Amino acid sequence: MITINASIITIGDELLIGQTIDTNSAFIAQQLNKIGIWVKRRIAVGDVYEDIWQALDEESKLADIIIITGGLGPTADDITKPLLSNYFGGKLVVNENVLNHVKYLFEKVYHRVGGALLERNLKQAEVPDVCTVLHNARGTAPGMWFEKDNKVFISLPGVPHEMKGLMLDEVIPRLQQKFSLPAIIHKTAFTFGMGESMIAEKIKDFESSLPSYIKLAYLPGYGLVKLRLTMISDDKQKAEQEIMPLFNQLQELVKDVLVAAEDEGLETTIGKILLAKGKTVSTAESCTGGYIAHLITTIPGSSAYFKGSVVSYANEVKENVLGVNHETLTGSGAVSKETVKEMLKGVLKKMNTDYALATSGIMGPDGGSEEKPVGTVWIAAGNNQKIEFLKLNLRFDRKRNIEQTALSALNFLRKFMLAND
Amino acid sequence: MITINASIITIGDELLIGQTIDTNSAFIAQQLNKIGIWVKRRIAVGDVYEDIWQALDEESKLADIIIITGGLGPTADDITKPLLSNYFGGKLVVNENVLNHVKYLFEKVYHRVGGALLERNLKQAEVPDVCTVLHNARGTAPGMWFEKDNKVFISLPGVPHEMKGLMLDEVIPRLQQKFSLPAIIHKTAFTFGMGESMIAEKIKDFESSLPSYIKLAYLPGYGLVKLRLTMISDDKQKAEQEIMPLFNQLQELVKDVLVAAEDEGLETTIGKILLAKGKTVSTAESCTGGYIAHLITTIPGSSAYFKGSVVSYANEVKENVLGVNHETLTGSGAVSKETVKEMLKGVLKKMNTDYALATSGIMGPDGGSEEKPVGTVWIAAGNNQKIEFLKLNLRFDRKRNIEQTALSALNFLRKFMLAND
Repeated sequence: MITINASIITIGDELLIGQTIDTNSAFIAQQLNKIGIWVKRRIAVGDVYEDIWQALDEESKLADIIIITGGLGPTADDITKPLLSNYFGGKLVVNENVLNHVKYLFEKVYHRVGGALLERNLKQAEVPDVCTVLHNARGTAPGMWFEKDNKVFISLPGVPHEMKGLMLDEVIPRLQQKFSLPAIIHKTAFTFGMGESMIAEKIKDFESSLPSYIKLAYLPGYGLVKLRLTMISDDKQKAEQEIMPLFNQLQELVKDVLVAAEDEGLETTIGKILLAKGKTVSTAESCTGGYIAHLITTIPGSSAYFKGSVVSYANEVKENVLGVNHETLTGSGAVSKETVKEMLKGVLKKMNTDYALATSGIMGPDGGSEEKPVGTVWIAAGNNQKIEFLKLNLRFDRKRNIEQTALSALNFLRKFMLAND
Repeated sequence: MITINASIITIGDELLIGQTIDTNSAFIAQQLNKIGIWVKRRIAVGDVYEDIWQALDEESKLADIIIITGGLGPTADDITKPLLSNYFGGKLVVNENVLNHVKYLFEKVYHRVGGALLERNLKQAEVPDVCTVLHNARGTAPGMWFEKDNKVFISLPGVPHEMKGLMLDEVIPRLQQKFSLPAIIHKTAFTFGMGESMIAEKIKDFESSLPSYIKLAYLPGYGLVKLRLTMISDDKQKAEQEIMPLFNQLQELVKDVLVAAEDEGLETTIGKILLAKGKTVSTAESCTGGYIAHLITTIPGSSAYFKGSVVSYANEVKENVLGVNHETLTGSGAVSKETVKEMLKGVLKKMNTDYALATSGIMGPDGGSEEKPVGTVWIAAGNNQKIEFLKLNLRFDRKRNIEQTALSALNFLRKFMLAND
């Protein structure tokens, strides 16, 4: 079996000074993996001619496919296109198709938002005469496909939205045509609420019994651990037949904490349960500040089961909008079992949903006390018949406390919904 | 002036198959930059012995400091520690301090969440006898500091929270002691609402007048462009004196679209304005689903000016909680100027705030019509005296439509607040 390896080069000083988080590489890697291409390395270099050139040299020694993103915008800090032209021994020429597309975008789309066609936009129609142009339906910077010494080099713009369109519409189909590709099969079990070491202990016999060509990886996250089995094979169907019984065995071993047999988010799992039950949910959020509602509504079609949320950051909103008793807030405090109980009842009634979820806690860095330190959180999940409670004692920074609370709350809701109709 | 270069190596198959987005590198790069260390390259490799070894060899040729993250967890897919031990010619020995710390964590912290001390946790106390151990106050996997051929190699766990603690408490102070470092000065102007090409046109004379040792970079994002001036110098004060007049000039050139003279988020800018005015805000969100409230509440201390949000995803919530007229929803539709106007008035009253922001739109992929295609959005910003409106026609995917709407809305609110007390 021949493995086709890829390397991803991302270009831009902003990646090296930490101003931008690189999400492009992850998307590209996912798409390559799906068609059986293994990403061997990812590398980020700055807007420095020699560094980019060196990266092209090095990566082409290690990989069959080199994908380059960034450095193709209309402004002057971009040096990638002239460099690529030199690297592959070509010269920059105007491509009529790209030129027409740039003009079209400015005439039909950008003028509505005040964009005027400038000389530098027209320059985007210049491409090295030794490449195949890849049509960028979503923007002005074209993709470029080069071949040299049996290696394929693909240059894509760094704007995520444009890069994605080019990957899906142009790059993936061409790579499938060019290479005879094996199948890479990943099966991921998504667990929540048990530490990496404990899970490892539970599955150690299983792990040591795995054949050498099936890899098990632990991917710990915020309160969750994903367990991934990976197999590369020429025969996809046979590989599926071999990996599935093992994957089922793995799921059985971690069934107490298993959320899904998919590499998905809890918000997706929640949505599937609600759709299957034909039920609705709402949230009353204090410390999570709308983050749970945001997670739920990132899923297309979530309007079928999510009615809304009251983000009650101030106590007066807990009282006036959700109907929490003033005495509860002064007596038990905003971060208490009693308050999340009344928040939950309030939102259930206000939004008339089957289920609801409520959160209240201290996310930090300030606001903690001896009795209720930063990281103290109360969560309630319930319906009109029953309410259950969860208390967390987190010890992270504000951002992670918010994320961890949201995920714990969604998992708590998931369990409640599975147990209560 | 001597430039000290660093290279960051992140280890883990999950990075190469796109299962995890690498946020560690950005944090590390930011911290290094602050103390005058330039990150020359970032590289991600899989859990493959030879690939990690090769990366260490290569990066140590190009950089003075090599920072490695990942591959130090308690489970069996981790191969980094034995590799580092071999690479630097040492052997693994139990470190008493680390052992005591691991035992302490399990006795005092983890037992509360059901964690039991396992053999594999004790193994985390084993470190190569040729390294300096860096204390990980936040977890069981220690950091490690190696020196070889005048290069420094630092190995850190991949869990972001633990890596961050180690960087701030252990790595940065030691690097500052070890190297004589120049200052790297970045000045970033944050603009919103004008395309990269148009901005480039506005500042082209300024750009060409810059001395060669001051770099200008364009960092385009969702509707925004950040303009960054960078200078490396031995004399921080003198460099500040040189760069500031240029930075002021740059701000003046883009003043129509300038949001802040800081590399910050709009949610930070908004918070500063509200604090300065001593005013409060609330949001009524349909299509943004709580994302605006989430952005605002990621800022520590936001409870001083943010009271809450009604996420009114369902029309009945717009009616019952916000008081939008049934006739408005049936007549003009949920995505209309009239609806966001009534949503805004509703939340202003319900939450009793000085300002409010309302959004309603179609984020896709479904729900569009000929008259109101996917990407149609109405935004209202206002106070009790005045309400202003903004209509967007977005053309992205769901996730980006949500993000773009939230940022546009925050910017619209910012402008409204600056013009109206």
